[in-house]
Amino acid sequence: MAEQGIPQVVELNVGGVFYTTTAATLTREPESLLGRLFSGAQPPPPKDPKGKYFLDRDGVLFRYVLDYLRSGALVLPDSFRERERLREEAQHLGLSGLLEAIGAQERARPSGFITVGYRGSFAFGRDGLADVKFRKLSRLLVCGRVALCRAVFGEALNESRDPDHGMTDRYTARFFLKHSSLEQAFDSLQEQGFRLAGSCGSGTAGGSADLKAGVDPEENRWNHYNEFVFVRD
Amino acid sequence: MAEQGIPQVVELNVGGVFYTTTAATLTREPESLLGRLFSGAQPPPPKDPKGKYFLDRDGVLFRYVLDYLRSGALVLPDSFRERERLREEAQHLGLSGLLEAIGAQERARPSGFITVGYRGSFAFGRDGLADVKFRKLSRLLVCGRVALCRAVFGEALNESRDPDHGMTDRYTARFFLKHSSLEQAFDSLQEQGFRLAGSCGSGTAGGSADLKAGVDPEENRWNHYNEFVFVRD
Amino acid sequence: MAEQGIPQVVELNVGGVFYTTTAATLTREPESLLGRLFSGAQPPPPKDPKGKYFLDRDGVLFRYVLDYLRSGALVLPDSFRERERLREEAQHLGLSGLLEAIGAQERARPSGFITVGYRGSFAFGRDGLADVKFRKLSRLLVCGRVALCRAVFGEALNESRDPDHGMTDRYTARFFLKHSSLEQAFDSLQEQGFRLAGSCGSGTAGGSADLKAGVDPEENRWNHYNEFVFVRD
Amino acid sequence: MAEQGIPQVVELNVGGVFYTTTAATLTREPESLLGRLFSGAQPPPPKDPKGKYFLDRDGVLFRYVLDYLRSGALVLPDSFRERERLREEAQHLGLSGLLEAIGAQERARPSGFITVGYRGSFAFGRDGLADVKFRKLSRLLVCGRVALCRAVFGEALNESRDPDHGMTDRYTARFFLKHSSLEQAFDSLQEQGFRLAGSCGSGTAGGSADLKAGVDPEENRWNHYNEFVFVRD
Amino acid sequence: MAEQGIPQVVELNVGGVFYTTTAATLTREPESLLGRLFSGAQPPPPKDPKGKYFLDRDGVLFRYVLDYLRSGALVLPDSFRERERLREEAQHLGLSGLLEAIGAQERARPSGFITVGYRGSFAFGRDGLADVKFRKLSRLLVCGRVALCRAVFGEALNESRDPDHGMTDRYTARFFLKHSSLEQAFDSLQEQGFRLAGSCGSGTAGGSADLKAGVDPEENRWNHYNEFVFVRD
Repeated sequence: MAEQGIPQVVELNVGGVFYTTTAATLTREPESLLGRLFSGAQPPPPKDPKGKYFLDRDGVLFRYVLDYLRSGALVLPDSFRERERLREEAQHLGLSGLLEAIGAQERARPSGFITVGYRGSFAFGRDGLADVKFRKLSRLLVCGRVALCRAVFGEALNESRDPDHGMTDRYTARFFLKHSSLEQAFDSLQEQGFRLAGSCGSGTAGGSADLKAGVDPEENRWNHYNEFVFVRD
Repeated sequence: MAEQGIPQVVELNVGGVFYTTTAATLTREPESLLGRLFSGAQPPPPKDPKGKYFLDRDGVLFRYVLDYLRSGALVLPDSFRERERLREEAQHLGLSGLLEAIGAQERARPSGFITVGYRGSFAFGRDGLADVKFRKLSRLLVCGRVALCRAVFGEALNESRDPDHGMTDRYTARFFLKHSSLEQAFDSLQEQGFRLAGSCGSGTAGGSADLKAGVDPEENRWNHYNEFVFVRD
Repeated sequence: MAEQGIPQVVELNVGGVFYTTTAATLTREPESLLGRLFSGAQPPPPKDPKGKYFLDRDGVLFRYVLDYLRSGALVLPDSFRERERLREEAQHLGLSGLLEAIGAQERARPSGFITVGYRGSFAFGRDGLADVKFRKLSRLLVCGRVALCRAVFGEALNESRDPDHGMTDRYTARFFLKHSSLEQAFDSLQEQGFRLAGSCGSGTAGGSADLKAGVDPEENRWNHYNEFVFVRD
Repeated sequence: MAEQGIPQVVELNVGGVFYTTTAATLTREPESLLGRLFSGAQPPPPKDPKGKYFLDRDGVLFRYVLDYLRSGALVLPDSFRERERLREEAQHLGLSGLLEAIGAQERARPSGFITVGYRGSFAFGRDGLADVKFRKLSRLLVCGRVALCRAVFGEALNESRDPDHGMTDRYTARFFLKHSSLEQAFDSLQEQGFRLAGSCGSGTAGGSADLKAGVDPEENRWNHYNEFVFVRD
Repeated sequence: MAEQGIPQVVELNVGGVFYTTTAATLTREPESLLGRLFSGAQPPPPKDPKGKYFLDRDGVLFRYVLDYLRSGALVLPDSFRERERLREEAQHLGLSGLLEAIGAQERARPSGFITVGYRGSFAFGRDGLADVKFRKLSRLLVCGRVALCRAVFGEALNESRDPDHGMTDRYTARFFLKHSSLEQAFDSLQEQGFRLAGSCGSGTAGGSADLKAGVDPEENRWNHYNEFVFVRD
């Protein structure tokens, strides 16, 4: 903690990009390389010709390192695309807290695919074909890795067709939802950071001759299966 | 309001990024941290070696904070991707007006999915198959959260199949439009910031043997259901 | 025109971003705020500590304002995403020419959806199924707002099924093209700044028993309707 | 070539952005505006207060102008989105070589759509439906502008159904490939800078009663047509 | 290794962009142009007016060159779009190690398409149509270049229908997976850097009259083929 000759406000030249911060921020993790360099535990870095402390590292990524040190939390932009490079930076600087934060964030928000499908038709009114009442579907099927499906749909998930065997890393094609609102399922996925990556549909084959009893022939003709593939990057 | 020693034109060093603005702008919200720092209500921030006032915060996000303080309005770029980070910044700086503006913007423009579907066919002329007259559809179905559907389609929405029960947070699959122009529905969605995220189609099953009376067999053969999924981020 | 004390080459500090330009450029629109400030019609802006004229506005957007003043034309990048913010900037600066240019550009290039669909099959050779000769389609259907369809397809548009009633703001599903090259239609849309946003396909229902006379059964089995949704942002 | 007073290393202020280059680079095209300004053929540009030569043009685009002058080649980033603006810049600076390079690049890499479609089914083993052997397809159809199709597929293109009439600007729907690997066709398109923009599928209609002799009924039931739309921007 | 007059900390002006690094970093590849310039093996580059060593090259790309020299590894951002320009830079600077790293990265991570398809239906419970038990599929088909398919699916790949002939550059449509979890296949592709680029679906034709014995008519009616196209850029 004994800082020898390190000023309160510290000017940095990180690979040619300039930052201004405090010694307190830089020594937030005392055991890290930065912590030792700016607490006097080891000699400070060399200075550039203008007297700024010089770190021979990539200057752009350092913005997020500094941000983490300032706030203690890792809040990256939505589309941050240099996570692997940031991890290398954290490793080099010995910032175990930052490394942990990157890992925790990935564990908390694993990437992967979830597919939502429905077998649907239409309810028709008394005046026949022109009088469609609404889109009609009985069940929303949910397929994917068990842990991921649960993280997204929680209580809305019906697992009765595929009861838990304690393995959340397995994949299932037997979950469905307790509600039957397609767009509500979509909204749940969006809230958890998923986006729609693709979709496909198909109709059914065969005429009324093949039907089990008690099915309305017109609704039957319009039976279709639409499948929506969501992904989280 | 008594400003002691704070110049009219203020030079800032925000985490290494330089800004120039006025004391009047910075004190727009007098009770905020910035307001107090630059009105003399509490001591001003330290200065960097060049004499600029120094704030140990992320320098890039501060552009939008300053923009808000200058104009009193929050006008973010279309694809702004650091909203969560901006909210943290506003919280740290105690800018209740900015916090409110971020919240209001999100409430006014909630994210979510809306699906538009149509059951269509073709009208054929006297010369049969080669003589298609036009794409023919009777109803445009609209599915999604009630409040969202209303915000997009307003007066064009027919809710007669699913009359209001005062719950706008519920989801519906029973709305349709008063007009039947598919592309007009698309344009309405685009104007409200939605984009097409996926689409799927299917034909119908079964031959003329299954048909109710009075339906043209050729039109019937071309019956299909196309479904278009729109999303607002 | 009498410029008092304003140098030929003008250095600006726009919200912390530096620009260098000429007084002639800045006074291109004499009645604007910039025109008055830099022609001597009203006192010039204050200077920052380095002697640059200081404007308390967003520094990044000013690049496009300056570009417009230099060339007299508004040429924005393809994916410019701050149009609304630029309009506010023009309004603040009283640049009526720039405001007009933004408006004209939007009127000349309205956003919206156009759908291209085709009912297709295959021509088969003498050796049956394995001997497909080519993809065969009779008509390319075009749906969307009338004015938009005309702007894209011009002379290639056949409007005989939906003759003009002087209303170009209405929507139509009755236009088709004079040629039948699907990819040519796509290329025309691309040239006008549209992109393919989604597509869906469906086959037809029913067997040969339902067919009108004179239709090849094999071609009939392969009948399908594919629909391509294009959008301009 | 007689350079009067122009230093070897030249410092530029282009609309507020600073560049450092050599007089040799700037005079690569002697007849251009830059060539004349920096060879002494006409008076050099004015200087800014720091003594840098000042050009009243957009500073960001100048990076690519300078890059071209340095290397003699135009190598733009993959997603360069200011081509039209760059062309204007080249025109203003009288850089005929750069103008030519922009044009040549566009001619060599024209934008446009190519569609790849296949009529496919499955080969089934002795144990029936559960024993699918592989996806089976006879021909890959290629549709689009003739010159574009040839540029992508070259020798792999079979044009026998649509022999050349010397018009490469026409569109065709009668080309197919000599091989039948769908993903190989996709890879060829990707290598040429195309991306998949949309796709749609459809099944066939009608039962075995309609079939020509000698077709396996099970394979026949699974007949489908999938169409993939590729585009180059 | 004898450095004459080159300081430990080196300030660079690369085409107007400033970098700070060490002589040790710049001479990591002694035989390269940089290695010779900064080791004293040949005269150092000229200096700009502020005394920084001046390189007449593009300043932005140099960030990645320097990054490589610092760490000895090439870790580019996910969406790096100037690979061709970087290769040119490496060639100019004679950095054979960097050239090799670019090449190795491309070989290790070749671009290309892989298609995953499945023939699926639904398992129905005792109560008929409304009682779907789950999505049911027997085999996941994998098509594409052999080497690419193996790199993604490894041990999970069943090649029994298309045994190896030592040619990994050929394409196959005869591989399938040992498991039948669609989303697990998707996740494997995502882990290897693929994204879903398109998808299409189709149903089957014909009624129960055409069926082989022992197939449930209801499951048969819902038979469909969905195909998912993945790509790595």
